[in-house]
Amino acid sequence: MRKENVKVILWGIGAMGKGMAEMLLNKKGVEIVGVVGRTYRLGKSMYEYLDVERGDRPDIIIGEYDKVITEKAADVVIIATDSFTRDTFDKIKYCLENKINVISTAEEMAYPQAQELDLAKEMDRIAKENGVSVLGTGINPGLIMDLLVITLTGACIDVESIKAERVNNLSPFGPAVMHGQGVGLTVDEFNRRVNENDLAGHVGFPESITMIADALGWKLSDEIELSREPIVSNVYRKAPHAEVKPGDVAGCNMKGYGKVDGELKIEMIHPQQVEPQLEGGTTGDYITIKGTPDINMAIKPEIPGGIGTIAMCVNMIPHIINASPGLKTMIDLPVPRAIMGDMRDLID
Amino acid sequence: MRKENVKVILWGIGAMGKGMAEMLLNKKGVEIVGVVGRTYRLGKSMYEYLDVERGDRPDIIIGEYDKVITEKAADVVIIATDSFTRDTFDKIKYCLENKINVISTAEEMAYPQAQELDLAKEMDRIAKENGVSVLGTGINPGLIMDLLVITLTGACIDVESIKAERVNNLSPFGPAVMHGQGVGLTVDEFNRRVNENDLAGHVGFPESITMIADALGWKLSDEIELSREPIVSNVYRKAPHAEVKPGDVAGCNMKGYGKVDGELKIEMIHPQQVEPQLEGGTTGDYITIKGTPDINMAIKPEIPGGIGTIAMCVNMIPHIINASPGLKTMIDLPVPRAIMGDMRDLID
Repeated sequence: MRKENVKVILWGIGAMGKGMAEMLLNKKGVEIVGVVGRTYRLGKSMYEYLDVERGDRPDIIIGEYDKVITEKAADVVIIATDSFTRDTFDKIKYCLENKINVISTAEEMAYPQAQELDLAKEMDRIAKENGVSVLGTGINPGLIMDLLVITLTGACIDVESIKAERVNNLSPFGPAVMHGQGVGLTVDEFNRRVNENDLAGHVGFPESITMIADALGWKLSDEIELSREPIVSNVYRKAPHAEVKPGDVAGCNMKGYGKVDGELKIEMIHPQQVEPQLEGGTTGDYITIKGTPDINMAIKPEIPGGIGTIAMCVNMIPHIINASPGLKTMIDLPVPRAIMGDMRDLID
Repeated sequence: MRKENVKVILWGIGAMGKGMAEMLLNKKGVEIVGVVGRTYRLGKSMYEYLDVERGDRPDIIIGEYDKVITEKAADVVIIATDSFTRDTFDKIKYCLENKINVISTAEEMAYPQAQELDLAKEMDRIAKENGVSVLGTGINPGLIMDLLVITLTGACIDVESIKAERVNNLSPFGPAVMHGQGVGLTVDEFNRRVNENDLAGHVGFPESITMIADALGWKLSDEIELSREPIVSNVYRKAPHAEVKPGDVAGCNMKGYGKVDGELKIEMIHPQQVEPQLEGGTTGDYITIKGTPDINMAIKPEIPGGIGTIAMCVNMIPHIINASPGLKTMIDLPVPRAIMGDMRDLID
């Protein structure tokens, strides 16, 4: 067995990075050796920031990226700062050039070849040149509406079509998510922002759809279609970071469609809103495969997005360390799994 | 892209082998180059045996293993003849020594290190010596009560305990399955056969439980406990290959328990019977994970065992060809997926 602990640097210590730090501090055979943060967090002790007992562990001061990340300073950097490949590319490049593996929470990084083929090729080249690897993952994209779908098709002789639906409750999330999903807006404001391309909705459908198509060997024949519709509330809804009046918008119903030879093959439905139960909505993850055989899967309630993303990123650490150099996706690597033992046992 | 078709030999052409042959004949970029069979099938044309139009394909004559399997005669042999590692070991060894990758349907081969550690090590050694790899898979063990469970734990920060339940209908299966599950016996006969260790029930719980424990890093502290209980029917039930009188046995309820530090961590429940719906039973696959977060998954009805096993074995062909040499299990390789395109596109 490897003697040294697995060494992790966290780049970004917001809600996701913070959760990963707390998770890592409770795991065996792994240690956090650096944290990259910004603004008011800079210069603070990670332990104070997390409000966690440091014990006899050496302190970790939240620093700037070029001070914290130096050649081979860790086995892996988890970058939890962006949603889009283009925004996170330079950070990934910097880590790879310092010969450190990367896990990214950016939704587009779950399958960057879907919308950023050139950047994907460039990351693959840089990773190989430096003998390390890079993976994007999270709960969705990363598991629920892509890897899990693909895994279930493994039991199919043939697949005719796929529908994946994720119905969740946004209430635990912060102001940035409320803004991105248009929670609390009037319907007019919501539609204006959709038209101005200023309402993100769920990021990741082109990635999930392309991942599934590539995994199964379907060639998508048309542009992937996306739609964002307001979920209009009939009742008053309140969440810690949002308030919705009757007639206003409780969230965004995002849909995505992938076609093969003009025929709809992959359908994604992801209504995200605060407090859906107030109108009788039940949350859950649903996968329907039409084929030989048909498969109908339901997870109720849905696997929570925040915890799930934190867990997926940490649980993939051994896999990305063990991977051959290059850009990897969830369909290239062994399945994720909870790490209940010593992380060093999982390193080849 | 690889120019030559992927070449497959089928060793065993019973219900499973036959289904795989039919599936392979409908896929692109792959061909069956040999079939090993016994008794009345020997010397017959595979196409006649399957009742499939040969077209302009060269005929395949069902032959003896040493005539069909010669050095590098195929990319992979699928062996569908046994349930136990010990019974299938010599066949696997023969293929590996002929430098051909192997996929086995033997339930114990899904994780041979669980009960046959020496044979597992020996297969690993032989495979590596010959630059090829060997995998056991199927619907269960292979996916439903192990790989799928493990994949879902990937979304967990911590796991407290796991319960996997598979409730299925045995009616489509043949006389061998009816015998193995004790369908149609009196309760006394059933119990006598259990006591004489002559009633197989489901084969694979030690493999599934050990696979999960190893994947998560749990050290099993006790022998895995197994129990086989008669499912006593209150009504008359009839299936193509069995008849059950009220008061007699409709099938076998198999349970398995894996403990860590004396505490129950992994519970498996698998009642297999004919026509469960006659007493209001609904079939399905159920996974319950207690942890952070809890996860409750249901697939209704259950993924059918026969089709599922056929699909899993064929769908893993590219993965075992691409694998590094040695003994592999489902947790070592990328996830299975339906192959809807050209199989050659999937070979590295």
